[in-house]
Amino acid sequence: MSLKTFLIGQPIDSVKEAHERLSKKMGLAVFSSDALSSVAYATEEMLLPLMLAGTAILHYSMPIAIAIMVLITLVAFSYMQTIRAYPSGGGAYTVSKENLGENFGLVAAAALMIDYVLTVIVSISAGVAAVTSAIPTLHTHTVLICLASLLLIVVVNLRGIRESSKIFAGPVYIFVGAIFLMVVFGVAKYHTGAVPDATGYPHETLANAVPWLLLMRAFASGCTALTGIEAVANGVPAFKPPEAKNASVTLVWMAAILGLLFIGITYNAYVFGIVPKENETVLSQLASAIFGVGPIYYLIQFSTFLILILAANTSFADFPRLSSIMARDYYLPRQLASQGDKLVYSNGIILLGVFAALLIVTFQGNTHAMIPLYTVGVFLAFTLSQTGMVVHWLKNREPWWVLGMVFNGIGALATGVVFVVVGYTKFMHGAWLVVAAIPMLIYLMVKVNKHYKSIAEQLIPDDLKPLANYKHHSVIIPVGGVHSAVVNAIKYARAISDDVVAIYVCLDTRKASITKASWDKYGMGVPLIVLDSPYRSVIEPVVDYIEEVRNIHKDGVITVILPEFVPSRWWEHLLHNQTALLLKGILLFKKGVVSTSVPFQLR
Amino acid sequence: MSLKTFLIGQPIDSVKEAHERLSKKMGLAVFSSDALSSVAYATEEMLLPLMLAGTAILHYSMPIAIAIMVLITLVAFSYMQTIRAYPSGGGAYTVSKENLGENFGLVAAAALMIDYVLTVIVSISAGVAAVTSAIPTLHTHTVLICLASLLLIVVVNLRGIRESSKIFAGPVYIFVGAIFLMVVFGVAKYHTGAVPDATGYPHETLANAVPWLLLMRAFASGCTALTGIEAVANGVPAFKPPEAKNASVTLVWMAAILGLLFIGITYNAYVFGIVPKENETVLSQLASAIFGVGPIYYLIQFSTFLILILAANTSFADFPRLSSIMARDYYLPRQLASQGDKLVYSNGIILLGVFAALLIVTFQGNTHAMIPLYTVGVFLAFTLSQTGMVVHWLKNREPWWVLGMVFNGIGALATGVVFVVVGYTKFMHGAWLVVAAIPMLIYLMVKVNKHYKSIAEQLIPDDLKPLANYKHHSVIIPVGGVHSAVVNAIKYARAISDDVVAIYVCLDTRKASITKASWDKYGMGVPLIVLDSPYRSVIEPVVDYIEEVRNIHKDGVITVILPEFVPSRWWEHLLHNQTALLLKGILLFKKGVVSTSVPFQLR
Repeated sequence: MSLKTFLIGQPIDSVKEAHERLSKKMGLAVFSSDALSSVAYATEEMLLPLMLAGTAILHYSMPIAIAIMVLITLVAFSYMQTIRAYPSGGGAYTVSKENLGENFGLVAAAALMIDYVLTVIVSISAGVAAVTSAIPTLHTHTVLICLASLLLIVVVNLRGIRESSKIFAGPVYIFVGAIFLMVVFGVAKYHTGAVPDATGYPHETLANAVPWLLLMRAFASGCTALTGIEAVANGVPAFKPPEAKNASVTLVWMAAILGLLFIGITYNAYVFGIVPKENETVLSQLASAIFGVGPIYYLIQFSTFLILILAANTSFADFPRLSSIMARDYYLPRQLASQGDKLVYSNGIILLGVFAALLIVTFQGNTHAMIPLYTVGVFLAFTLSQTGMVVHWLKNREPWWVLGMVFNGIGALATGVVFVVVGYTKFMHGAWLVVAAIPMLIYLMVKVNKHYKSIAEQLIPDDLKPLANYKHHSVIIPVGGVHSAVVNAIKYARAISDDVVAIYVCLDTRKASITKASWDKYGMGVPLIVLDSPYRSVIEPVVDYIEEVRNIHKDGVITVILPEFVPSRWWEHLLHNQTALLLKGILLFKKGVVSTSVPFQLR
Repeated sequence: MSLKTFLIGQPIDSVKEAHERLSKKMGLAVFSSDALSSVAYATEEMLLPLMLAGTAILHYSMPIAIAIMVLITLVAFSYMQTIRAYPSGGGAYTVSKENLGENFGLVAAAALMIDYVLTVIVSISAGVAAVTSAIPTLHTHTVLICLASLLLIVVVNLRGIRESSKIFAGPVYIFVGAIFLMVVFGVAKYHTGAVPDATGYPHETLANAVPWLLLMRAFASGCTALTGIEAVANGVPAFKPPEAKNASVTLVWMAAILGLLFIGITYNAYVFGIVPKENETVLSQLASAIFGVGPIYYLIQFSTFLILILAANTSFADFPRLSSIMARDYYLPRQLASQGDKLVYSNGIILLGVFAALLIVTFQGNTHAMIPLYTVGVFLAFTLSQTGMVVHWLKNREPWWVLGMVFNGIGALATGVVFVVVGYTKFMHGAWLVVAAIPMLIYLMVKVNKHYKSIAEQLIPDDLKPLANYKHHSVIIPVGGVHSAVVNAIKYARAISDDVVAIYVCLDTRKASITKASWDKYGMGVPLIVLDSPYRSVIEPVVDYIEEVRNIHKDGVITVILPEFVPSRWWEHLLHNQTALLLKGILLFKKGVVSTSVPFQLR
């Protein structure tokens, strides 16, 4: 308990739950860390497939980046319509379920849950890559640093961070400012001719055979820049009134900053001739090329690390919230539904932490290995959400519904196409894992749902039968000898019934007669019945005897009292009570029989 | 249950336990498989260290083999004295404990238990090596074949093989006959000049620097031939009367056969110039050199496999027997003390099987890797046992005690010296594992013993205090809502007490009022108390309430009834009863509180 208190802090009183409303400036900081942080790796991921053709098609990076920028614009406009329609927060699960039906809701939920896990591991590994780029000696400890960062996030979230959303503002604005500065300085430096032109290598022209698959892969990889863009639309109620308007403005700002930073980094990487390399990120190479390795370089690297950790952190709010909604809809175990004593969904946080840790270890904290898994689920959720919005406008015909439908339709089409492109180009590189995991997760959720529903039916109390009392209560105490724990159990048995018998299974006639002799002294008048056991089984004669009593008192109930030692150390449990445990397991399935362990505390 | 019956067979009635007494011929077969089977690998293990010096010192194999034969003679004479003194069976644990005290008994027991495990894995791996030598394509499946053989032995032993000791006679006598034939034919073939002389390579002479360490290592490795030699002395009561005399004669025969076969194989290996090689045993090379790869070769290989499997099998009788003795002396968990429904110590058999399987996988079924671990424990047990015998003669001064003391003294000295040599030369090659494991095992045994003793003291019923009944019995039912499982629990509660209350922890006032409303209908007149929980903990208010009741009725007892679902599939347990489990864990340590799960069986 004291370790828990040390790590997690004192419990928080329910009445303290207050809604802190966010200004546009604060909202931008809180909701954009996930989206903006992706510029830290999106350019690099986009360049990787292009490099498979050497330097010949590297100059396609700019057209692809522009295509992604267009996509960002379309998706942003699309989500503005979602904000208008769902001022209470329009997550992909809610929108899909309400408009496309339960099944699509489950698909969206499964895709989202997987994405939250992947956001955590991609953001942490990219953040740690920013650090190890700046301090190369740390590179061999990548996995350890990732896990330590993860643990920190888990503990902070278990403590409850609701009150401290202000901590977002600093890192986000410092990151945006630093990257913006770098982009501007880079452009200036290049155009003032302070660096040799790196773009002079021979270019493929469109006339030659264009490697369309590589370009598609580059586009698909670059689309990681869009991950997290939906966050504002999910969080509308957190804004100060007028909530929808403020959220919309924030979304526009976020999309604009995201697009500018992404295209700016890509342009600079192109003109400075920077390509991905093993142990240093593209952003780190760019920063050192523009500013040299000095204070500004370290500021960029460290603020990149911070914003990525914040991005991972957002999943620790989103995943537990979604799983609690799913649990309340009976699709996930109930343990995920309720808040703990810090007003956070502790079980969801721990579950996400465990999944993330397993994946970090599996992929050895390698960002490039995880990215192909990432985007496919994001765009599936986007597509379902936007399609759900189209159906929403058609059904409800609210003011400006045609406008909403058109924008969401374009959004759905665009994200749908990207989903197919991403799924197709990255299937063999890991996306198949996600494609396989989504139906499995849905299967589990449906299975859990069926179970809870079946139980709910079975648990409706029967109105017709009168609630008769049991006609008889027999107590049976299986004993292995006469000692304090047994005496303790007899005393309890006499408190709960007048019909108490003890039974003793005879495996050794000598021991049986010793037991019988001391029973006269300590048995408190409770009769001792000695049972034979030709096959030396202790369990069977006991169960047979219980069955006999059950047949005699058909309308009665039987309590089987098991004297149980409670050792003071855990390993001592292995030395005791094994037979009692087995017997309890068997009796669990017999109606009209209740087994009770009467504990005897040992020192 | 049906799988158990299929694998293990029907239970055996206690009264069927009959003592099958063995003739000398049968006794030799039953008790010598362990000792005689070691000639299958002893020569090879002895040659391995010699080969480290190339062929230069291979001719020392014969002098070393003669030294080992002398050792066999000394140990056999020594054990004949043990037979005379302990006609009821003189295992190293018994002899050491009775004569040298409890502590040395534990050392002997620990060494023996480790040796039984090692006998299993060494014998199985050597047996499988005989098979893979004959059928080289099986070599890649070594570990699998080892594990399959192990599983077979475990299942056979769990079925109970007491009645079938006759199965030993065939394989043992076929093996002895086949190897004897091979030795004789080999000698004949060599001396009739039918093969080129392989002994013509340049010999080191004693004049040059003698690599004493290598010779000592070869001697130590060759001493594996002695493992199992103590078996006859442990099993005296199994012989027909006069037991001691028959056992002594059997021991002499066994030692003679063992010595002859070992020296015969070593001589033939020397004259045929056979040295250990990667994937074929020395015995297999020898057999094919003498008989060619034909029927007799396959007979030798297969009977070698069989006798080694029988040798492994003897440990499955010895280990469970020793651990049941140790358990009855309260040094091992009680579960090892009692016989199962097949009159065998099932838990001991399973435990040995698990340990052996782990080690086979760890060492990948490689005999050479396991042998260095093997001999050190054997000779430690020999030394303790013989030393114990010296003390025995000194103390008891039975007829011919001086003779006994002299022979046992020589035996103790010889085995003691070998123990030091083996420990010294093999320490770095694996013997350190055993040297480390013995004290750890003793530590565990002492710990277990202390625990049982402490409990036995605490369990003596208190004679002085009158056995007063409890003054009051309160029943508390924590409920989370109104449903059939709760109704079921109320019905039970009313059967065991008149003072029943239900308590409900309010986390949500809306749900609380729903619960209160349906309570009026289904509550059977039991009052419902609603508890507040400012920190949303379900456990704490319940525990606090129980404490309150405990303070009011200081001389009473409290039953906490927990309505529990019993799902029909195991994974469904994960979806329920978590809070109840936690509560039960806490209540276990509260005196005067008994928690009872009232099961509600789901479909």
